[in-house]
Amino acid sequence: MILAGGSGTRLWPLSRAANPKFLHRLGGTDQTLLQATVARVSALSHPDQVYVVTGVAHAAAVARQLPRVPEDNILVEPAPRDSLAAIGLAAAVIARRDPEAVVAVYSADHLIGRQERFEELIRLAADAAETGALVTVGIRPTRAETGFGYLHRTEQIAPGVHRIAEFREKPSADVAAGYLASGEYLWNAGMFVFQVRAFLAELERQRPRLHAGIAAIIEAWDGPDHEIVFGAVWDDLEKISVDYGVMEGAAAAGKVVTVPADFPWSNIGDFHSLGESLDGDADGNVVLTDAAVPTLRGVEDSVVVSTTGRVVAVVGLRDVVVVDTEDALLVCPRDRAHEVKQVVDGLRADGHAAHV
Amino acid sequence: MILAGGSGTRLWPLSRAANPKFLHRLGGTDQTLLQATVARVSALSHPDQVYVVTGVAHAAAVARQLPRVPEDNILVEPAPRDSLAAIGLAAAVIARRDPEAVVAVYSADHLIGRQERFEELIRLAADAAETGALVTVGIRPTRAETGFGYLHRTEQIAPGVHRIAEFREKPSADVAAGYLASGEYLWNAGMFVFQVRAFLAELERQRPRLHAGIAAIIEAWDGPDHEIVFGAVWDDLEKISVDYGVMEGAAAAGKVVTVPADFPWSNIGDFHSLGESLDGDADGNVVLTDAAVPTLRGVEDSVVVSTTGRVVAVVGLRDVVVVDTEDALLVCPRDRAHEVKQVVDGLRADGHAAHV
Repeated sequence: MILAGGSGTRLWPLSRAANPKFLHRLGGTDQTLLQATVARVSALSHPDQVYVVTGVAHAAAVARQLPRVPEDNILVEPAPRDSLAAIGLAAAVIARRDPEAVVAVYSADHLIGRQERFEELIRLAADAAETGALVTVGIRPTRAETGFGYLHRTEQIAPGVHRIAEFREKPSADVAAGYLASGEYLWNAGMFVFQVRAFLAELERQRPRLHAGIAAIIEAWDGPDHEIVFGAVWDDLEKISVDYGVMEGAAAAGKVVTVPADFPWSNIGDFHSLGESLDGDADGNVVLTDAAVPTLRGVEDSVVVSTTGRVVAVVGLRDVVVVDTEDALLVCPRDRAHEVKQVVDGLRADGHAAHV
Repeated sequence: MILAGGSGTRLWPLSRAANPKFLHRLGGTDQTLLQATVARVSALSHPDQVYVVTGVAHAAAVARQLPRVPEDNILVEPAPRDSLAAIGLAAAVIARRDPEAVVAVYSADHLIGRQERFEELIRLAADAAETGALVTVGIRPTRAETGFGYLHRTEQIAPGVHRIAEFREKPSADVAAGYLASGEYLWNAGMFVFQVRAFLAELERQRPRLHAGIAAIIEAWDGPDHEIVFGAVWDDLEKISVDYGVMEGAAAAGKVVTVPADFPWSNIGDFHSLGESLDGDADGNVVLTDAAVPTLRGVEDSVVVSTTGRVVAVVGLRDVVVVDTEDALLVCPRDRAHEVKQVVDGLRADGHAAHV
């Protein structure tokens, strides 16, 4: 189950409300992040076992980028309702086909390395999920990151599988440093593996109204009123994340375990982290261009992205980000790449919504 | 007499072989540098006394940018033959109309400030030229510049007028520092004032073949063979600058004087010097955009130029140059702006001639 949503304005001007990052070739290959996500699970799931949840704005692009995924597996939300409704819907659709199914939930816009290790750990998580537990694949932290939520793992209950004591909100810098030092905390990467039956049972226990809404949608799924019921019921569903809505409560009930993962992972939060996630050239530069002619002189440790056919000449700078798109250009130091959000907010406030 | 030539690749990607800097609005106003040059002399010369020498590639653009300059005053060189042929031709054309004429020679792509002072000093130079001297308007140096030629001035021969001992080549850094400290040296800005008669006499004395060629062209100027003679004779003219070809020899013969000028002047050698020449905003930024939406956050002392309608977002940088054009983008620190020449050379060598 691949969640293909989110606008990702921290990757502006490449990623837009109308053109989110999962549709872009950001992995340094010919594949978009969405395509790379499907390719990554190809040894684990046949294409007709791949389900994608996306929004109305990107349904057509998703369908065209993934020609081998069956049309019925591309679930288009009538409106954004956060991750719990999206996962709940897809779990219910999958449960109709196979109530015993074990599913893995991925984001369409993450980068993951060490393919064999990834497959090994997802298989381990799937085994753990056969017990009925909700499994999170937590990422071993490599830095005291304050931008992610954390998982507090406790005792090992099987080789490579630990119990989760609780989910933790994004920490302060001090707290994050403590988490890193303790070795007991993992990044919550939003990667889950569970039996659909177990997940839907927890959904019903903790969020009965949301569960009932999804059940009503599924009831009408094959009938003539599919779209009417889907649209009307969906609109009233609670807007809440899977973490708050189900996982935290399940953890408190001792139903969540984790498989700590040591493969490289990035949610590509901004262009700096994109640069961190990809191998640079001999000068440490990560250069992603389609048709452009990059000309770098004395440039080091920088991230240069262009979707235009222009000459992009950068001279004598280090640790900068240059992003060149048809209607907008960004130049900033890597350590201020996160301020792109303020730029986007400012453009929106100044009436330049077409550029965000 | 305005010389509108030169490709100015040090202002790449704005200025191109096909689109030189004098055709661009670089002065922070709605005027191109060429238009600003004509406007600057409007109190000194009526439009029908303004002559422009340009090349075949830019004749149409020059004609359209200067609608009040008569067509016959726009002299189009069949091929580039450096400044002596250009000035000699225009002087000869003007001499047919008025043998007593005093002309001032300007470049079309320089920035000059303090308009009243400019007019005052050109009038002073014109008075000095009435004696038959060739007058250079030398710029008082404001830094130990190694990129310009210098004039060595000696005794004052009239208020504000000095004799010139000699022209000096571009100096080393040490020599330039000595020039600056001595107070006896001026920048050679290529700005001259002279009687056309006196100039043509010196041309004949020092470069008789070039003088004869121009005379032959003028002989056929009003006849049916104008273009045939112009093209054929022009092609054989010596390719030499006015400094080497006439002014240095005239200085050695004691025929050159100078009016030291203290108005702000720049030949806009690169984007750094463009930034030096124009008033910045409160943060010291010089922002020249046509339709673009500039968004600067925490940016200081930078030069941002855009000819596109794009959003140009720069965050958290100081002393940088960002130049955004339809088919090329430049990002570099101001103190490396001169390296644009190497970028252009590299692009040409790599087969991207269309981008230079």
